[in-house]
Amino acid sequence: MRATLMYKAGDVRVENVGDASIEQPTDALIRTVRSCICGSDLWPYKDLAPTEGGARMGHEALGVVEDLGSEVSNIKKGDLVIMPFAFSDGACEFCEEGLNTSCLDGGFFGLNSGIGAQAEAIRIPQAEGTLFTVPSTDDGPMLASLLTLSDVMGTGFHAALMAAVEEGDKVAVVGDGAVGLCGVIAAKMLGAEQIIIMGRHPKRVELARDFGATDVVSERGEEAAERVRELTGGHGVHAVLECVGSEQSMLTSMQIVRPGGAVGRVGVPHYQAIPETATTFFHNVTVSGGPAPVRAYIEDLLPSILDGTIDPGRVFDQTIGFDEVPDGYRAMNDRESLKVMIRP
Amino acid sequence: MRATLMYKAGDVRVENVGDASIEQPTDALIRTVRSCICGSDLWPYKDLAPTEGGARMGHEALGVVEDLGSEVSNIKKGDLVIMPFAFSDGACEFCEEGLNTSCLDGGFFGLNSGIGAQAEAIRIPQAEGTLFTVPSTDDGPMLASLLTLSDVMGTGFHAALMAAVEEGDKVAVVGDGAVGLCGVIAAKMLGAEQIIIMGRHPKRVELARDFGATDVVSERGEEAAERVRELTGGHGVHAVLECVGSEQSMLTSMQIVRPGGAVGRVGVPHYQAIPETATTFFHNVTVSGGPAPVRAYIEDLLPSILDGTIDPGRVFDQTIGFDEVPDGYRAMNDRESLKVMIRP
Repeated sequence: MRATLMYKAGDVRVENVGDASIEQPTDALIRTVRSCICGSDLWPYKDLAPTEGGARMGHEALGVVEDLGSEVSNIKKGDLVIMPFAFSDGACEFCEEGLNTSCLDGGFFGLNSGIGAQAEAIRIPQAEGTLFTVPSTDDGPMLASLLTLSDVMGTGFHAALMAAVEEGDKVAVVGDGAVGLCGVIAAKMLGAEQIIIMGRHPKRVELARDFGATDVVSERGEEAAERVRELTGGHGVHAVLECVGSEQSMLTSMQIVRPGGAVGRVGVPHYQAIPETATTFFHNVTVSGGPAPVRAYIEDLLPSILDGTIDPGRVFDQTIGFDEVPDGYRAMNDRESLKVMIRP
Repeated sequence: MRATLMYKAGDVRVENVGDASIEQPTDALIRTVRSCICGSDLWPYKDLAPTEGGARMGHEALGVVEDLGSEVSNIKKGDLVIMPFAFSDGACEFCEEGLNTSCLDGGFFGLNSGIGAQAEAIRIPQAEGTLFTVPSTDDGPMLASLLTLSDVMGTGFHAALMAAVEEGDKVAVVGDGAVGLCGVIAAKMLGAEQIIIMGRHPKRVELARDFGATDVVSERGEEAAERVRELTGGHGVHAVLECVGSEQSMLTSMQIVRPGGAVGRVGVPHYQAIPETATTFFHNVTVSGGPAPVRAYIEDLLPSILDGTIDPGRVFDQTIGFDEVPDGYRAMNDRESLKVMIRP
């Protein structure tokens, strides 16, 4: 089968590898219907050290179940399933609390586990706890929206929940990538009254407005913080969704949050420390977040996708086949594409 | 009147100063019934730079209302009142949300405002929003417990709420000072099943056990973290109450919190950054807290004090008159005394 490997920063190749297959009785094998490239794949694209044999890439997929281990009984061959970016047994104390990303038998697809989703087929560990069956469909836009439940829509929702967005709140979303845009959708679902998108890319900002953003701040650094304070009567926002993970974005997040407010961080941290320690203390600011337990959120979000209330699949602005995957990475890295979908 | 002034680190004096009096129509004047020395007063006791004329000290008091500004109508002369460590108007958007320590017309007693509570009388700004009338009493232990609503009991309660303590939780309290001990009381009130006090002072640890602590960890640093993990089945605690504010205590807090758990910090930060940024991200740890809005908590806590369910006044292990205040600072700084009460 064909799969995506990254050999070092900037070096992505699609190669023939051994077919994925069942290895454990708790595994399933899925044939990939849709996969995609994630903003977080761009971190290794910028800085991965040379790796012997290449690293398997990709952690988001929709697939059809092709084979099942002997201990998997809650899904069946032919099911259309969502594969969350983390696998989890669904049974340990953390899964029972809804924190599947801390599963005691779990792990992350892609780089860390050696199981890449940017491939024609994928072995799914802990399939009973991991996969989620959805109604079969071949509707393109619906498949795109379902695919976002693998990661970006669930991650944006997590940011909003961790930032404790409530009815009537003023909210800022830091980052106009796919997660940030899904964060706008989530903030609106939770009843935010004002949603400020912080970004400067015209198409992304336009999509953010479609999704419910009420204001756009395209300034950066201290000027951006100043502008947010102006837009919010001087005190900042109740909730910040930090969807980037850089030192600057985290600093801005801390500067625009209102006393008593919260920052929900979902951008993988590329900063050494949470800044503004004393200010956030004296302002009783909460910092929360981490890898989203998207498996737990599928039940919350799926109905709104199925009935058309939300259409997060619009974050995909380019669809490619496997041959074009290396160029897909380049296009996302150059910010030519917002998010690239792969259709085998 | 007599008042406490700190001239520089280690130099505390009780001197005659001009009588406190009404300055604004929103002020009240109270005659001090009880005041006390706070663990946070020990920070300037260790590092205050020399100050011309001395800094007024003290931010906790019980008093009897002696005079009222023309705009104060919800309290009356002769009332026994609790003075929270911050003054607040009770009417701004932050006060209405229960975050009185971010009041738009507020401030902090002691060093920052020049109004010290370790004095025979105290001018209270924003008296309507600040003071809380309680039933008159001359019962010594009851007065001591009421006095803790000025700061330490409300602050321990804030730590527990910000750490999101819930029924059945495993909780660790970092610090065996008065706030930490009140944190034990608060964790028990909120239904914690396991309460680990981290401290090594025999008398304080004993009082913590009386208040509801189930385990004691007297190790420090990495050994302390290891011991907490052992006591909690390997994963750490759901909630950490950080009641010190040092770099080491914050690091320990981050090392003992369970994935998905929270650290409620109330120790004034003497660290530059919140440590373990990446670990806490991958574990979805929440960091919250700040100066406690103790004014908002009096209503929650007062009934349990009045009916004897809790007796936080036991944190006072020494009672002194004004002449002995300098020695009271020394005794607390040397950890001879847990918390010193001042009876004029």
